[in-house]
Amino acid sequence: MLILIGFTLFPLYAFQPVDGSMYKSTETSMADSIMVRRIFDEALVNGQAYENLRDLCSIGHRLSGSENADNAVDWGVEVLEKLGFDTIYKQPIDVPWWERGNISEAKILGKDQAFLRILALGGSISTNGKLVAEVIEVDGIEGLKALPSGAVKGKIVFYNRPMDPRNIVTFQSYGGCVDQRYWGAVEAAKAGAVAVMVRSLTTLNDHHPHTGSMAYVDSVHKIPAVAVSTSDADRLHRLLSRDRPLSLSININPSTHADKASFNVIGEIKGSVDPEKIIIVGGHLDSWDVGDGAHDDGAGIVHSIEALRLLKSLGYQPRYTLRVVLFMNEENGNMGGKGYAAKARAWNENHIAAIESDRGGFTPRGFSVQGDSNQVAFLQSFRGLLEPYGLHIFEKGYGGVDINPLGEPKNKVNPNLMLLGFVPDSQRYFDFHHSETDVFENVNQRELELGCASIASLIYLLDQNL
Amino acid sequence: MLILIGFTLFPLYAFQPVDGSMYKSTETSMADSIMVRRIFDEALVNGQAYENLRDLCSIGHRLSGSENADNAVDWGVEVLEKLGFDTIYKQPIDVPWWERGNISEAKILGKDQAFLRILALGGSISTNGKLVAEVIEVDGIEGLKALPSGAVKGKIVFYNRPMDPRNIVTFQSYGGCVDQRYWGAVEAAKAGAVAVMVRSLTTLNDHHPHTGSMAYVDSVHKIPAVAVSTSDADRLHRLLSRDRPLSLSININPSTHADKASFNVIGEIKGSVDPEKIIIVGGHLDSWDVGDGAHDDGAGIVHSIEALRLLKSLGYQPRYTLRVVLFMNEENGNMGGKGYAAKARAWNENHIAAIESDRGGFTPRGFSVQGDSNQVAFLQSFRGLLEPYGLHIFEKGYGGVDINPLGEPKNKVNPNLMLLGFVPDSQRYFDFHHSETDVFENVNQRELELGCASIASLIYLLDQNL
Repeated sequence: MLILIGFTLFPLYAFQPVDGSMYKSTETSMADSIMVRRIFDEALVNGQAYENLRDLCSIGHRLSGSENADNAVDWGVEVLEKLGFDTIYKQPIDVPWWERGNISEAKILGKDQAFLRILALGGSISTNGKLVAEVIEVDGIEGLKALPSGAVKGKIVFYNRPMDPRNIVTFQSYGGCVDQRYWGAVEAAKAGAVAVMVRSLTTLNDHHPHTGSMAYVDSVHKIPAVAVSTSDADRLHRLLSRDRPLSLSININPSTHADKASFNVIGEIKGSVDPEKIIIVGGHLDSWDVGDGAHDDGAGIVHSIEALRLLKSLGYQPRYTLRVVLFMNEENGNMGGKGYAAKARAWNENHIAAIESDRGGFTPRGFSVQGDSNQVAFLQSFRGLLEPYGLHIFEKGYGGVDINPLGEPKNKVNPNLMLLGFVPDSQRYFDFHHSETDVFENVNQRELELGCASIASLIYLLDQNL
Repeated sequence: MLILIGFTLFPLYAFQPVDGSMYKSTETSMADSIMVRRIFDEALVNGQAYENLRDLCSIGHRLSGSENADNAVDWGVEVLEKLGFDTIYKQPIDVPWWERGNISEAKILGKDQAFLRILALGGSISTNGKLVAEVIEVDGIEGLKALPSGAVKGKIVFYNRPMDPRNIVTFQSYGGCVDQRYWGAVEAAKAGAVAVMVRSLTTLNDHHPHTGSMAYVDSVHKIPAVAVSTSDADRLHRLLSRDRPLSLSININPSTHADKASFNVIGEIKGSVDPEKIIIVGGHLDSWDVGDGAHDDGAGIVHSIEALRLLKSLGYQPRYTLRVVLFMNEENGNMGGKGYAAKARAWNENHIAAIESDRGGFTPRGFSVQGDSNQVAFLQSFRGLLEPYGLHIFEKGYGGVDINPLGEPKNKVNPNLMLLGFVPDSQRYFDFHHSETDVFENVNQRELELGCASIASLIYLLDQNL
């Protein structure tokens, strides 16, 4: 693209006069408009999120219970201290501790012999050496349940339902498949299978297995479970289409230890008008044990820290207490989210809003709110102020796994608590999700910085208008 | 991100009931809504754009006049023929033919000795061996003009104005700097400089020089011009900040040949109601001579071809003639765009709309229209139908370089001609633009496919409503 002529015709979104017509308090909208612009300028010119993310990712992946996760806790405390927040503390929680082990092998046996790229699912038991069995393909759990009784007995069940490419928002496609990964081993074991192999949950055709959480239940015999790359899943599918029996060997050696002590890391800026009311923003410090957890959820961590730093560096005195929470153990237990909510209930803390960033560090598209129509309308009242920055989605939707327990009836101190989720563009999220490719290099600096500024702007608007 | 609970709360944009309230012909909006959904499904399930782009990029870069550009013309004809469009032809045009040569060297001399990563700007003359001179830094052309007379005489002018990170849309920042690349040599030569070195136009701090077009004028002595990587520009800036004289050597050996015969490639589907009225969609086949021209503008080429393929494969019979135009020579002359418009005028062809895709293959955000308020309102009437697919921008703005000549008074047959530009997300565009990194691997399949479907939907809506 050359572009020399006509440049002034290009829409100047960021400098349009702000349309305050949909905005709640039109009198203050000019001041708000200027503040939002200052937040974005600070994020884009002096942003620290990208270098913070580089630093966090240099620790490596951070599965709960691992030494890296401990290092990430120390890193979080250090970063918050350097920023000079008013209160910084670690909140003790106990977390599951699962280790992958050093063996991840799977092979097609016989004359089609080939290695399959696999990763044990998080929580899987060991195969205790090579497990060899015939493989049978099913289209998700529904496919398994449609088989005649005994059909999978003694076999490896290969769950091969792909993510539906037709959804515009990729999280919907994830939602349509994730049950085979999470419940697949339980359902297959009930039917007599000896192991499960699950198609990786990615919209790409790639060579990387994508791991993730899975469940066992006490009443059902535990069997090993692995994720296989989509390219190898397609190969396996082609071979199985010939209707000839095919056997696999699988060898993984993970182990589950006793729970371990860990922490949520918390920092806050005290409110200047009503400090008993709290707005939190957070993501999760832990990650799966592959890649660097850059998008999931290093991005959410640095988004959250940077959002408060932006407000502080602009000299903003919040009315309410603003708190950043770096949650531990979102991926395999959510003990951080549950523990935080339990403490909030015990201490009768009045949370008025909670924002989570856990959908990657991509270009911001908007926010979702897990609430009633009044809350949706309130969120939408910020549309005019935020659209010039590319934010167009202000909708009913999920908040986030970490903040979700705060909204449960048993924990909810303030009946009007708003649970909000940051919504970035979703197209590339599952390219990287839970795989070796979720590394710093796959995060774009500007996309990350725009996310920080979007979240900081929302916090500012909540603080001014709630 | 784990996401198991609350999934149904996630906003189901793509399946929302379409809000027809802003839509022109509400009676037909249900049929339109279904057609748009079918277009997106076809693009996301059976899309050919990504493999077409892989194929086009395998030719390599495609600067006008090069053998690769000829190969790209052949490729275009072949692809259009395979799709079975009604009419396919090559439209002859003459294009400039500039070759980079095999030498691209620049060095800081003296005790700070270091190589600088440079690329000759497109159209630059040769240095005819090593050119050695003192370097002087300026902040754009304004900075040059602010210097006292004689200050740059015999020197290399180093234009180091960076792209402003504060703009939300990166094209604005490009527009704020591109004059130093395009007119920098002319202005520096007028002031007595012997060469210019221009900071690469990218929002990244990277090691890759980003080339692009430049101008000479007959009345001013020609001097060589190169782009330097932003990382090396920053280094040079630091060294120059010490206020000690610094000399550079530059050695490039490009050459400009006589113009060469080339072609626009055109394919069309004849209109079934009013075939004399024409809607065109296009991008440009040529690219700069580094990388593979994947985003600039391989993406626009495959967007345009796929848009018509999608409509055809769904059995859609257009009312008007739909024409895809693969323009040649956008980057350094726009002879394809000018030639196409001249022929359209000569043949009195009634173009009712022209759509260009030349802003990369990223997630679609909307469309801009280079027209009056009626045209903007007409475009905005499609908002309700397209928002469920993540398209929110429907604004006054630039169409595109290739289609621009069609709208010039001397060429405009139909006074109501609409010039429309496809607007994808702009954050990553200048990471790759005109550099070695503009390769196939940096295009995301889903982002590309969503662009194809967005453009096809717009063509359908124009065909139904114009």
